[in-house]
Amino acid sequence: MNLTQLRIVLVEPAGPMNVGSIARVMKNFGLHNLVLVNPQCNPLAEEALKMAVHAKEILKSALLVSTLPEALQGCIRAMATTAIVRDWEAPLENPRTALPWLLESPEEPSALIFGRENRGLSNEELNYAQRFVRIPTSENYSSLNLASAVGICCYELAQYITPDTPPPSETKLATLDLMENYYQQLESLLLDIGYLYPHTANHRMAKFRQLYNRAHLQTKEVAMLRGILRQIGWAIKNRLNHENL
Amino acid sequence: MNLTQLRIVLVEPAGPMNVGSIARVMKNFGLHNLVLVNPQCNPLAEEALKMAVHAKEILKSALLVSTLPEALQGCIRAMATTAIVRDWEAPLENPRTALPWLLESPEEPSALIFGRENRGLSNEELNYAQRFVRIPTSENYSSLNLASAVGICCYELAQYITPDTPPPSETKLATLDLMENYYQQLESLLLDIGYLYPHTANHRMAKFRQLYNRAHLQTKEVAMLRGILRQIGWAIKNRLNHENL
Repeated sequence: MNLTQLRIVLVEPAGPMNVGSIARVMKNFGLHNLVLVNPQCNPLAEEALKMAVHAKEILKSALLVSTLPEALQGCIRAMATTAIVRDWEAPLENPRTALPWLLESPEEPSALIFGRENRGLSNEELNYAQRFVRIPTSENYSSLNLASAVGICCYELAQYITPDTPPPSETKLATLDLMENYYQQLESLLLDIGYLYPHTANHRMAKFRQLYNRAHLQTKEVAMLRGILRQIGWAIKNRLNHENL
Repeated sequence: MNLTQLRIVLVEPAGPMNVGSIARVMKNFGLHNLVLVNPQCNPLAEEALKMAVHAKEILKSALLVSTLPEALQGCIRAMATTAIVRDWEAPLENPRTALPWLLESPEEPSALIFGRENRGLSNEELNYAQRFVRIPTSENYSSLNLASAVGICCYELAQYITPDTPPPSETKLATLDLMENYYQQLESLLLDIGYLYPHTANHRMAKFRQLYNRAHLQTKEVAMLRGILRQIGWAIKNRLNHENL
């Protein structure tokens, strides 16, 4: 097992020293892929390079993108880190037990997502992830520095890298972009049939996203679900008459 | 068990930002006793206070001493952190397995010792400790930032005192009979719209059962899914005209 397919995704990081420290601790634990979503600082600023010390190449090869979905392109597993969030029903897991899941398909890209220094990830951003971890901290001061949080997660992940690898699973998990296509198609149908209304669609769709994300769908399962939507569309268009519905 | 008797001892720290970051991460994980041995920087420098954020009181109450034995006064257990050291025969242990030993006499002071940013602890200083831990890092870049190393150890220590129980969930999981009702309703619709055929329905439905079972649906989520099916039934019955489906 190795960490070469794992991306550390930072959403709108604002502190160049944090970004530099993160590059260093990533290299300390054998991670190399850093993705910055709409960074609010220059990852090659002097302070960032200084904190990175011998990990400057991670800053230089960091991928800069403007949205979180771009950062997740091609990933089949995405986990978000979060503090306690309001209006969030998915369970917040312990990093120790949850993080190894990111390494279960070592040949496929996966992502561990961290939010902004001051306010973390929005609920909308959280919805792009399938699982959610919270580093357990003291009630007296729960807010970890971003670089500390990344460091702890990298340390945890490195604990699982051993020569003994379980055989790769035969099931092919759906990419997040495929899931996104499905959600768009579902939303479009639900709007058409009047199950959703435009002003509440986002809120309601968020529930469906959580539900399906939790199931870690396989590619062929998403194909089945999309097949149903197509067939429903066809049935409505062709005005089938079904007394017993 | 608690962490109130545990001291974090820093030998000759030179970076005020490191000292401030350490105060913060200590408070994050419920530690409060910081001891600085002959510090090479001012622990109340502006940069230190800035990095400590809401843990400034740990900097202000830090004990300043001039030698390591003074820092260990009254302790019955002392553990030192180290990189790989030459001419050292004691075993270097993994923090995960070794650190809990510091908490085994919770009423007595114990100490976890960290060395200088640039060259760690001398062999003479190591001799004041009874056990030695090394955070396992990559061969390509083994040197951790001091604050990262302290953060990881504080996190590990806190794992042993935090009850590992997830917060009670507010979510109410769906009963299996409710799931069964949903599956029946789904199958009936899929037969009606020609997505399923009677002779293959069971086989195909088994896939959907697996998929939804895996998601551990909540009662209200099943209600939403059934709401969709009802609305689709209504849409078909009422022969809606939807060009764009």
